[in-house]
Amino acid sequence: MTTEPGAGLAPLSRARGVAAMLAADTASAGAGITVEVTGPGQARAQMTVTGNMINGHGTCHGGYLFLLADTAFACACNTHQYMTFAAAASIVFTAPVRVGETLTAVAVERSRYGRNGVYDVTVIRDTDEVVAEFRGQSRMTSVPLPGEGGDGAHA
Amino acid sequence: MTTEPGAGLAPLSRARGVAAMLAADTASAGAGITVEVTGPGQARAQMTVTGNMINGHGTCHGGYLFLLADTAFACACNTHQYMTFAAAASIVFTAPVRVGETLTAVAVERSRYGRNGVYDVTVIRDTDEVVAEFRGQSRMTSVPLPGEGGDGAHA
Amino acid sequence: MTTEPGAGLAPLSRARGVAAMLAADTASAGAGITVEVTGPGQARAQMTVTGNMINGHGTCHGGYLFLLADTAFACACNTHQYMTFAAAASIVFTAPVRVGETLTAVAVERSRYGRNGVYDVTVIRDTDEVVAEFRGQSRMTSVPLPGEGGDGAHA
Amino acid sequence: MTTEPGAGLAPLSRARGVAAMLAADTASAGAGITVEVTGPGQARAQMTVTGNMINGHGTCHGGYLFLLADTAFACACNTHQYMTFAAAASIVFTAPVRVGETLTAVAVERSRYGRNGVYDVTVIRDTDEVVAEFRGQSRMTSVPLPGEGGDGAHA
Repeated sequence: MTTEPGAGLAPLSRARGVAAMLAADTASAGAGITVEVTGPGQARAQMTVTGNMINGHGTCHGGYLFLLADTAFACACNTHQYMTFAAAASIVFTAPVRVGETLTAVAVERSRYGRNGVYDVTVIRDTDEVVAEFRGQSRMTSVPLPGEGGDGAHA
Repeated sequence: MTTEPGAGLAPLSRARGVAAMLAADTASAGAGITVEVTGPGQARAQMTVTGNMINGHGTCHGGYLFLLADTAFACACNTHQYMTFAAAASIVFTAPVRVGETLTAVAVERSRYGRNGVYDVTVIRDTDEVVAEFRGQSRMTSVPLPGEGGDGAHA
Repeated sequence: MTTEPGAGLAPLSRARGVAAMLAADTASAGAGITVEVTGPGQARAQMTVTGNMINGHGTCHGGYLFLLADTAFACACNTHQYMTFAAAASIVFTAPVRVGETLTAVAVERSRYGRNGVYDVTVIRDTDEVVAEFRGQSRMTSVPLPGEGGDGAHA
Repeated sequence: MTTEPGAGLAPLSRARGVAAMLAADTASAGAGITVEVTGPGQARAQMTVTGNMINGHGTCHGGYLFLLADTAFACACNTHQYMTFAAAASIVFTAPVRVGETLTAVAVERSRYGRNGVYDVTVIRDTDEVVAEFRGQSRMTSVPLPGEGGDGAHA
């Protein structure tokens, strides 16, 4: 791609688009997830595991680990000015997580091609041990993000 | 495998093991998920999407779609008497879902080999349209499920 | 989707489009793969494992198991008149395979949405034991398949 | 894990174990794949796409892209002294590849936990453009690699 969508976007603008998106995200808010956009295609999300997030084996439910990673992924892939959706994702669970632990999900962009992207999210506990490895596939629309001025339709 | 673990398990016992597991599952309960074990390696789970499950684009958060499918998967793979964990999973999102919709996740067993299993979960809305295709990889332990009498260590 | 692309396609035409595609597929031909289209979105492929397909552990290389499943997937997803590509795929290896074994890959369509599709391919040996579970994500273009008359651009 | 299997293994020994494995790998040899082990959990593999590796759309067959990435993965995950198998893998195809192109697959270790591992392989063409993103899940046995002295059973 010679002209990358969102390539000239100011850092403030990236943060603004994601902030507008997060403000509407009741699922992440309900789980106490906080997010920081750390650069184009990058984000960090944090969540503390509560007694309401437990599965039938007494550890953090995979759905909440996925929710945390998916939110970090969503913020990372929506730093390019246009609304971008999760098309698919995979997760490998590498260690059980207990109530009270604070987890950090670090999302990075691996590849972008056309309107598509591949993002990896590593979820770690506070000892830096990895508890999950997530990979997301994204698909960009031609709709500017809320909060972005936009520059007309994305080719 | 010539002697399948849990092969001679009575239906009531399967349901009892899963019921004990679900009773401890605060994440599924919090999302209003109900589950029915429909046979060995099979389960159906239902959830109605509330205003607390929404992502930044105004549709059901992928984390909640995953939570629903993952719970159906967990119940399906724990019908074989021994505690079984999700090792990994993937999900393809095939249609956006809105607040108020009731979703059904249908889990089936594709393959079992050694202590491992592959389970597919199709998530549909009430028009039968598919909204997500989930595939889980399970790993069985040698620990009998709570509620199961167990028959000693699983070879 | 109210009007499904390729919905009115005659069986002969489906087979013709896939046959033209297979005729150009030197990779499958080199592996001795044969394919039968068994219906819309469905195909079966067969391959006999030779001494040239072995990995460093003395069993069939995962690359050849993937090649077989991927070819079945490609034929299944190209039964809808328009050239369709593999966007992504995953595979779980469930049993080792030895030289001399004949494998059958059975591809079925799980979901189609917009230009996308999800296809599952189960690879079995001649005892019907599953040796691999493959899932492919497809993406349809607007280019009619070689051998298809086509009916103009696909919306 | 406090004592990592293979942690004290000399570089030469790592290379020797993988070299013995590659010597038996007829599939990789037949595709002209060469491999260099670049460190513990790391490998680079190269392959030039020939006219025998083409799919029905005239580009490199996904099976050969997978074969290249899978071989890099196998070499990376077999640098820890014990025979290690691919349990599962996923691949995203990000750009078509043509006959005559030389591809490089770069494998890195993301996580190891118990006997399991997660490895990522990025496949690039000679312009450094990414053509595929692969992720593999490995499972270690207690069998020392051929060429390794071994130190008895791996706990």
